[in-house]
Amino acid sequence: MSLQAPKDMAAERAAAEFNIEALARFWAGGDKKYELQKKAYEIIKDDPELVLQSPKNFLEISRAEMREFTMCEIHRVIQIFLSGKYDKELAYEIARCTNQYNESFSMRFFVHDSLFRNVVNMLGNKEQQDKWNDDIDNYRIFGCFAMTELGHSSALRDLETVATYDANSDEFVIESPTITSTKWYIGAASQTATHTVVISQTVINGKNVGLNWFVVQLREKTSGKTMPGVIVGDIGSKVGHQGVDNGWIQFRQLRIPRSNMLAKWVSLDRDGTFHPAPNPAVMYATLIPERLSLLIVTTQMISQALNIATRYGVVRRQGPKNQQIMDYQSHYVKLIPAISFMYMMQSASTDINDNFDVLTSGGKIDDPLVYLNHMGEMHAVSASIKGLSGWYASDILETCRRCCGGHAYSAYNAIGHITNDWGVMTTGGGDNVVLLQQAARLLLYRLEQKLEFDDYPDLKFKSSSHYIADAKRLLALKNWNVTDVNLCARDPSLVEEALNAILVKRLNSINESLKNGSSHNDLLLESVRVAELHCATYIFSVNVTKFGLPQAPANIEKSVYAIMQRLTILWGLHTLHTYSDQGFKEGFLAPQQIKDIEKLYLEINKSLRSQVIGLTDAWGFPDFVLKAPIAKYDGDIYQTYFETLLTAPNSTGVPAYHDKYIKPLTEREAKK
Amino acid sequence: MSLQAPKDMAAERAAAEFNIEALARFWAGGDKKYELQKKAYEIIKDDPELVLQSPKNFLEISRAEMREFTMCEIHRVIQIFLSGKYDKELAYEIARCTNQYNESFSMRFFVHDSLFRNVVNMLGNKEQQDKWNDDIDNYRIFGCFAMTELGHSSALRDLETVATYDANSDEFVIESPTITSTKWYIGAASQTATHTVVISQTVINGKNVGLNWFVVQLREKTSGKTMPGVIVGDIGSKVGHQGVDNGWIQFRQLRIPRSNMLAKWVSLDRDGTFHPAPNPAVMYATLIPERLSLLIVTTQMISQALNIATRYGVVRRQGPKNQQIMDYQSHYVKLIPAISFMYMMQSASTDINDNFDVLTSGGKIDDPLVYLNHMGEMHAVSASIKGLSGWYASDILETCRRCCGGHAYSAYNAIGHITNDWGVMTTGGGDNVVLLQQAARLLLYRLEQKLEFDDYPDLKFKSSSHYIADAKRLLALKNWNVTDVNLCARDPSLVEEALNAILVKRLNSINESLKNGSSHNDLLLESVRVAELHCATYIFSVNVTKFGLPQAPANIEKSVYAIMQRLTILWGLHTLHTYSDQGFKEGFLAPQQIKDIEKLYLEINKSLRSQVIGLTDAWGFPDFVLKAPIAKYDGDIYQTYFETLLTAPNSTGVPAYHDKYIKPLTEREAKK
Repeated sequence: MSLQAPKDMAAERAAAEFNIEALARFWAGGDKKYELQKKAYEIIKDDPELVLQSPKNFLEISRAEMREFTMCEIHRVIQIFLSGKYDKELAYEIARCTNQYNESFSMRFFVHDSLFRNVVNMLGNKEQQDKWNDDIDNYRIFGCFAMTELGHSSALRDLETVATYDANSDEFVIESPTITSTKWYIGAASQTATHTVVISQTVINGKNVGLNWFVVQLREKTSGKTMPGVIVGDIGSKVGHQGVDNGWIQFRQLRIPRSNMLAKWVSLDRDGTFHPAPNPAVMYATLIPERLSLLIVTTQMISQALNIATRYGVVRRQGPKNQQIMDYQSHYVKLIPAISFMYMMQSASTDINDNFDVLTSGGKIDDPLVYLNHMGEMHAVSASIKGLSGWYASDILETCRRCCGGHAYSAYNAIGHITNDWGVMTTGGGDNVVLLQQAARLLLYRLEQKLEFDDYPDLKFKSSSHYIADAKRLLALKNWNVTDVNLCARDPSLVEEALNAILVKRLNSINESLKNGSSHNDLLLESVRVAELHCATYIFSVNVTKFGLPQAPANIEKSVYAIMQRLTILWGLHTLHTYSDQGFKEGFLAPQQIKDIEKLYLEINKSLRSQVIGLTDAWGFPDFVLKAPIAKYDGDIYQTYFETLLTAPNSTGVPAYHDKYIKPLTEREAKK
Repeated sequence: MSLQAPKDMAAERAAAEFNIEALARFWAGGDKKYELQKKAYEIIKDDPELVLQSPKNFLEISRAEMREFTMCEIHRVIQIFLSGKYDKELAYEIARCTNQYNESFSMRFFVHDSLFRNVVNMLGNKEQQDKWNDDIDNYRIFGCFAMTELGHSSALRDLETVATYDANSDEFVIESPTITSTKWYIGAASQTATHTVVISQTVINGKNVGLNWFVVQLREKTSGKTMPGVIVGDIGSKVGHQGVDNGWIQFRQLRIPRSNMLAKWVSLDRDGTFHPAPNPAVMYATLIPERLSLLIVTTQMISQALNIATRYGVVRRQGPKNQQIMDYQSHYVKLIPAISFMYMMQSASTDINDNFDVLTSGGKIDDPLVYLNHMGEMHAVSASIKGLSGWYASDILETCRRCCGGHAYSAYNAIGHITNDWGVMTTGGGDNVVLLQQAARLLLYRLEQKLEFDDYPDLKFKSSSHYIADAKRLLALKNWNVTDVNLCARDPSLVEEALNAILVKRLNSINESLKNGSSHNDLLLESVRVAELHCATYIFSVNVTKFGLPQAPANIEKSVYAIMQRLTILWGLHTLHTYSDQGFKEGFLAPQQIKDIEKLYLEINKSLRSQVIGLTDAWGFPDFVLKAPIAKYDGDIYQTYFETLLTAPNSTGVPAYHDKYIKPLTEREAKK
C-alpha cells in the first residue's frame, strides 16, 4: 500500500498530455517569472524568519506565536527590500512567495502596502501624497484602514464616527460617539500600525457634509504607545488569520490638522468652506482594488487546497476494486471544474487588471463622467466576481475537505487552515449578496434603458455586459436551436450564445416582475443568481477570446494552448450545467437538451480525469508551502504523515490530568 | 442603535403566532422533559467542572486546556451518576445538557457510553456481556472503538490489522503489519481509554476467516501506562473536537485470550473450529446506531448556529432603510427552511428510533432473514439521512456564518467553533457519497425487482421506500397534473405525490441507463442526488403523517400543531423547489409549474418571517450554552460583545515583540 502510492503518483504525472513545465511557466506568467519564483522559493525555504523550520509546525502554533511569527516575516521581508541584497524583482517575488506560505502575512502586509497606500494615493492630493509616500514606501510607518464599525459594515452611509472641523484651531476633532461607532475588525490596528486612514462623517459649521477619509497617527513610532485620544484593543481570537492583529479603535476628542483630510476630490478652505466631490462615488473607488486583489488571493489559496485534494485523491485507494478514489465520478467531477476555474480566473484576472489600469494611471482619464462610466463597469465586474468566486471558492474548499475524508480533519493536512483563513473573504470587503445585487441592478438598468444601444462607446475596454447590445435578437429566440449538443465540445460560441440568451431573458423577466409590482427584495435571490451567471459567463467569454482560436498563437506552447482550450470548454459547460435551471425556467432549454448538456459535461470531465496531476503540479507549490503530508509531491504520504504526529506536543505518554480525573474512576474495584 | 436592539428583539418575540413555551415543551418531548431540562441547565450553569466560568472563555482555551476540561466534565458527570445526589433522570439530563454545551464532551463520552458498549452488547455473547457490562456501566473501565486505519476507512474489507489464533496457548495474537494498518483517529484512545474493541482480520489455521471484533486492554487501569504490545499516540491538532483525544494504535504481537473475540454471531472452538456468522451483514449492525445518533447531534449543534444567526439577524440593522437584516429575502429564505429542517428532523428521529427499537430488543426478531430485511431498511434510512443531513447541515452552518457577516469570523461568536466541530460528521461514520450510493442501490434494486410488489409484508414498520409499491401508476403519469400550485399550501399530499413520482421516474431512468451500458460510477452523482431526494421526501412524509391532519390531536397544543403544519408544508415545498431539476429533467414539471412552486415557496417563507424568534427560542438554549454575545436572549448584544474582547488575553498594550520587529523599522528617521 505505502509502496503503491508513489507509483500511482508517478503514473499520473506521466499521463499528462501536455508539457507540465511549459504549463507551469505559462501559469507563472512567463519564463522570467517562473525562474524568479523558483529562486524565491529556494531562498525562503530555509530562512527561519520566513518559513517555520521543523520540528515547529506552522499548523500547530498558538495565536500568540502566529502573531509574532507573522510580524517576524514582515520585518524580514522589509529587511530584504531595504538591504538591496537581491534585485528588486526577486525581492518582490520573495514577498509574493511568502504570501503563498502564510496568508496572515499576506493580509497583514497588504493592509499597509495596498489598502493604506491606495487610499492615500487615490484620495490624497499631490502634497499629501508627497508628505506620506516616502515613509509608506520605506516602512517607517505602518498604516491601516479604519472603515467598518461595530454596528456598521458595508453600508458606509450609516457610519457613526464623526470628524468635526474646529475653525479656531484649524483642526478636525474625531470622536466615537457610541459603542457601535467603535472601528471594528481593523487589520493591523491592534499591534502593528502607527497610522491609519479613517472614514468618518464630516461636520463643518454644524452641518454634516458626508463621509471623508482622514489620516490619523495611532501610536508613537518608537515606543508603540497609543497617542492621546486614541484607544485601541484587539479583536481577540478569530476563526482564521490569527497572524493578523485585527483591532478596534475608539477616538476621544482626537485632534488632527485640517491637512490630514484627504483632498484629491474634496477640499476644505481655512475658513470652513467645503468643496464636495464632483460625484460621491469617486470616494468608493478604493474599494475596487481590494476586490480585485481577491482574484489573486483566490487562485493562491484555493489552488493549494485543490492541490492537496488532488494529490491525495490519486494515491488513496479505496472501495470494492481498491481503486484510486480519484476515479469515482463524485471525486473528479467536483475537482476538475474547480481546477479549471483556477485557470479561468487567472486569465480573467489579467483582463480585469488591464482594464483597471485604464481607470487609474495607465489610461489617463481626466473627464470625471467618463471616469465614472468606467468605474461603474469596474464596480460591476469586481462586485460580481467577488460574489461568485467568494462563494464558489467556499464550495471548493468544502469539496476538497470531503475529498480527503477524515484526513482533512487533521489540522496538519492544511485544508482546515485554508478554509478558516478563507472565511473572511466571503463576508469582508462587501457582503456578497449586496455586491451581486448591485451588479444585477446595473445589468437590469442597462437592459431596461438601452435595448437599442450599440455597446458603450465611451468605454475603452469591452464591457462585461456587452451581450446586452444584442438583447433584441436574443430575446426573440424561443428555444436553444442546438439539437446536437455534442457540437459544443468543439464550438464554445454555441455555449456562449446560450448563456447570453439565458442572461438576457432572465434579466428581462426580472424587469417584468418589477414592473408588475414585485419589490427588489422579493426578487433578491433571483437577481443574485443572475449576477452569478453573468460573472461565470464573463469569465468564460474572456477565456474564449484567448483560447477559442483554431490555432495556438506563436507565444504559447501548443500543448499548453490545447489544454487551456479544453479547460475553457469545460468551464462553459460547467456554467451552462450549473445554471441550467435558469434556462429551463425561461423555457429556453428543453429537458432533453439539459440531459445532453449533463452528459457532455460528465464526459469532458472524464476525459480530463487523467490530467489532474499535471494540471495541479503546474501551480508550482513546493511541499513546504502546501504543508500537508497527504499532498507530498512524491506520493509517499503515510510515513510523512505519521512522523508529523510524532513531533506534535504531548503526542505520547500519560497526560498530566490522569491522576486527577481518570485514575479515581478506573482504580476502583468492582463489587464482588 | 444599541437601545434599538433589545426593542427589536422584544417585538419579534411578541410577534409569535403560537405559544412559545408550549412549543418549547413540545420540542423538549413533553412537560416532564422540559422541566428536567430547565433544572439541569440551572445546575450546570454555575458548576465550574461542567461549564467554564468567566473570565475564562470556552471559545478561547488551548487544545491542552480543552482536553483537560473535557475530561474534567466527564469525571464530574460520572461523579453525579455515581453519587445518587440527583435522581437518575435528572442526572442523565445533566449529561445531555453538558452535551449541548461542549460537543467534545458529547463525543468523548459517547465513544465509551455508546460505541464501545454497543459493540460489546450487539456482538458479544451472554457471558461476554456479563463479563464487561458491570465495569462499563460503572465507568471502572473506559472503552474506545478501533475500526479505521491510516490507510483504510469505510471500506472495512481492506483493513490490515490481523488477529491470528494460536491454538497452543488458546490466544489470539494481534499485529499491525504495516504503517497503513495503524488504527487511526480512534476517539478517546490516546489519553482516556483503558480498553478498546478492535476490528481485525482473523486468521485461524492459516486461513483468513474474515473480520471479527476483539476486546483489548490498552492500559493499566491505575497508572494509565500502556500494556505490553500496545503502542498508542495522539492524532494531534484537529480542525475541531480538540477536547477529544483521538489517537492511533499499533499492536505488536499482543496476546489476548480466545474469549475476547466477540461471539454472539460467530464462535471459535478450543480446537480452532470457526463457526461463521449466518450473514456477515450482522457484523455491521453496530454502525447503524452511530448514524442514528447523528440525528440528535444535528439538531443539537445546527440549531445552536441557527439560533445565533436568527437572533443577530433581527437586531442587526443595515441598508438603505436601516432595516433589520432578517427582512432581506436572502436572509429569511435561507434561514427559515433550515429552522424548519430542525423540527422535521426531530419528528423523523422519533420515527426512526421507534423502528430501530423493533430491530433491537423491542421487537424481538429471532428469524435472521426477517432481521436482515429490517436491517436493510434501517441501513437505507440511516445511510441516506446521514448523507442528506450531514451535507445540508454544512450548508446551513455556512449560511449562518454568512448571515452574521464579519462578526461570525470572531471566534467568540461560536459559529466557527460549531462549524469546526461539525466537519467530522460529514466524513466520519461512513463517507456520505458512499452511504447515499448504497441507499440508491437499494432503491434501484427494489424498483427493478418489485414493480408489482405490494409493500414489504415482512416489515413491522412502514418502509421509507413505500412509494415503490405504487411505481406502475406513478411511472404512467406524464406530467404533474396540478395546475393551481397554490393548492399545495393547504394540501401536502399534492407535494408528496409529485415527489414520489419524480423519485420513481428518476430511479427508473437510472435503471434504464444501467441497462443501456452505463456503469454505476458513471451514474454516481445522479444516484446520490436521487438518494438525497428520497431522504428529504421520507422526512416530509413522516411529518405529513403527524401534522397533516385537519385538526390537532388532543395531546398537542393547537397553536403548536398549527405552526408544525406550516413548517411541514414549507419543508415539502423546499424539497420540491430544491430538487425541481429532477422533475424537469424527467419532463414531469413544466417551466410554469417550477415558477409557481418557487413563488409559493418564497411566499410561505415570507409568511414565516415574523415567526423566527419564537421558533428558535423554543429550542431553549440558555445564553451560556450559545456562548455568542451576538445571540444574547435580550438582544443587548454590542456591550456584551465588547466586554468579551476586553477579557481576552493580550487585548491591549504593546506586544512583547514590538522592540524586536516593529521598532527597528519605525524608529528610523526619513532622509532629508
